[in-house]
Amino acid sequence: MRGDDAPARRPAARRATMKDIARHAGVSESAVSFALNDRPGVSEATRARVRRVAEQMGWRPSAAARTLSGEGSSTVGLVVARPADTLDVDSFFLHLVSGIQEGLADRHLALLFQMVEDVEAECEVYRRWWAEHRVDGVLVVDPRVDDPRPPLLDSLGLPAAVIGGLPGEHRDGLSTVWADDADAMGALVARLHELGHRRIAHVAGLPGLAHTERRIATLRAGAERLGLTGVRSLTTDYSDRQGAEATRRVLNSPDPPTALVYDNDVMAVAGVAAASALGFSVPADLSVIAWEDSALCRMVRPCLSALGRDTVAFGRTAARALLALLDGEPARTVPVPVPRLVERESTGPAPGSSGV
Amino acid sequence: MRGDDAPARRPAARRATMKDIARHAGVSESAVSFALNDRPGVSEATRARVRRVAEQMGWRPSAAARTLSGEGSSTVGLVVARPADTLDVDSFFLHLVSGIQEGLADRHLALLFQMVEDVEAECEVYRRWWAEHRVDGVLVVDPRVDDPRPPLLDSLGLPAAVIGGLPGEHRDGLSTVWADDADAMGALVARLHELGHRRIAHVAGLPGLAHTERRIATLRAGAERLGLTGVRSLTTDYSDRQGAEATRRVLNSPDPPTALVYDNDVMAVAGVAAASALGFSVPADLSVIAWEDSALCRMVRPCLSALGRDTVAFGRTAARALLALLDGEPARTVPVPVPRLVERESTGPAPGSSGV
Repeated sequence: MRGDDAPARRPAARRATMKDIARHAGVSESAVSFALNDRPGVSEATRARVRRVAEQMGWRPSAAARTLSGEGSSTVGLVVARPADTLDVDSFFLHLVSGIQEGLADRHLALLFQMVEDVEAECEVYRRWWAEHRVDGVLVVDPRVDDPRPPLLDSLGLPAAVIGGLPGEHRDGLSTVWADDADAMGALVARLHELGHRRIAHVAGLPGLAHTERRIATLRAGAERLGLTGVRSLTTDYSDRQGAEATRRVLNSPDPPTALVYDNDVMAVAGVAAASALGFSVPADLSVIAWEDSALCRMVRPCLSALGRDTVAFGRTAARALLALLDGEPARTVPVPVPRLVERESTGPAPGSSGV
Repeated sequence: MRGDDAPARRPAARRATMKDIARHAGVSESAVSFALNDRPGVSEATRARVRRVAEQMGWRPSAAARTLSGEGSSTVGLVVARPADTLDVDSFFLHLVSGIQEGLADRHLALLFQMVEDVEAECEVYRRWWAEHRVDGVLVVDPRVDDPRPPLLDSLGLPAAVIGGLPGEHRDGLSTVWADDADAMGALVARLHELGHRRIAHVAGLPGLAHTERRIATLRAGAERLGLTGVRSLTTDYSDRQGAEATRRVLNSPDPPTALVYDNDVMAVAGVAAASALGFSVPADLSVIAWEDSALCRMVRPCLSALGRDTVAFGRTAARALLALLDGEPARTVPVPVPRLVERESTGPAPGSSGV
């Protein structure tokens, strides 16, 4: 094949240096340094000429030089600690990252992104990034019960915004962007109750994640308040496979639920297919609701009722909360709107009920 | 709320410096510098003690200092130029990024990630990153017809690996990771022909992308070779909405196709729903195949036949191709395995045909 033996170019060979600019502008290197660093020592005419030449040559101060001069790395970090195969078809992260980028674009900050297997590896990345001055701050996702990350970030002194944390959880240098999942789950149970559903199963996400535990606790509290006894939660790894398995388990139980709530869209779609294979028709025999509305919910038949939120805006808000910290503002809790239920074809009255 | 008035921590306040290490080790700052930079000027005993103290204090050379000393930024960049809403439910990018991270992990390289609206903005990011010494190289996705990026990267001298390029397209400092879409499309048309299909519609992706145009051209060539006249391609933006629209358009035409090939999984799922709404049953009336196998293809009913490839391995191969360039190896074309057809429930004999 042509060019297989083409020589590799030496990286950085063509980037303009202060020396190049000095040669082109016909001045000394130190004159270039004075001119570009806004220091006295050159005439205004020389300063203007040097700047013009530097601009023509595409010169910019290197990120490294700015970091060493104390201006920060102009980079924030995001580490996602989930096994790669559970991210399959997960629209949440792409939307979140898209929003984060929008928020960072205001200041031309770059995003350093890393996927790791578990939270221990995530902590190790924070230690390394911070020690190596790679980031000015980080965005933390998937807050956990007994989360080791806030105390670590606190001890490192690494500024952070926690996405989906609880209000009041913030510490010095650690802001929290708070989505009220509990409120959303309460509203959802009330709506299913109104439709006549008395037995509800909740196919939850990863155990140990703060929002998983919060949804489970709120569902239980809501059920107690309404006097419902046939309510249960099962945790999964968010995959379509475990979503389908949990569905089969509850539908094969002696007193199967008439409504199923799934912690993501992927499991809800897999659950509908599993239910249908067992002879349950949606929504005649079974109502289904997905957390996290997406194109997937709108594409399948029946279209899925889902809890919708603006995940892009969520990411943007988180980025801005981190920027505020980096600007020296105090740590704070920033609430985002409660997700709301978008009813489509997969929800209806419980079988034999007159609910509306 | 508690702590809303907590003072922000000054970034970098707690990172160990050479001065801290000197104080703890009871030696001068220059002794620390000699010891940590492997220079003569201190005894072996002092060198060992300084290193031990430095390690205990979590000190590491800053990325910025290493960059200025000519060791590179230890960072590679990835820019994705697609409107955020077309990334909805797109499993390709998450898998690709996951594989890239695996490939980079061998060398502890970090990934700088940026989403932008179009290819012009992408070029601007390359210019800025390179001028600011933020990256040692970049991974380029979605190669285009008349692509402005290879000449730009060439003129900048920024090493790059193009993911999904054509063999022989590489230049100095620009490697290509090549997936033979044309071969896969040829095999797919042959298989549909074998099943008795004579009228095939191809719901393609974004016009102007190199692989879109390659698939369209190969489909046309394959059809000519087999003497099929009822074969056509329609381009879209990869979204479920345009996938459904294109499906309705071809199925409402006077001589509707008996087989539909979609350039991604999302459009295939939306297409099946649209076909079903028009009274077409899959696979009795219509066979459907998706490019890019995913959980989505396995979850929906009927399960979708799809072209499967190992996208994680694709990303890993691309990362390693870039690393080889950064090591000074020559630019080259690296082939990855041709995607192969996984037949599930959505394909079958053409209506009224005896194809198998």
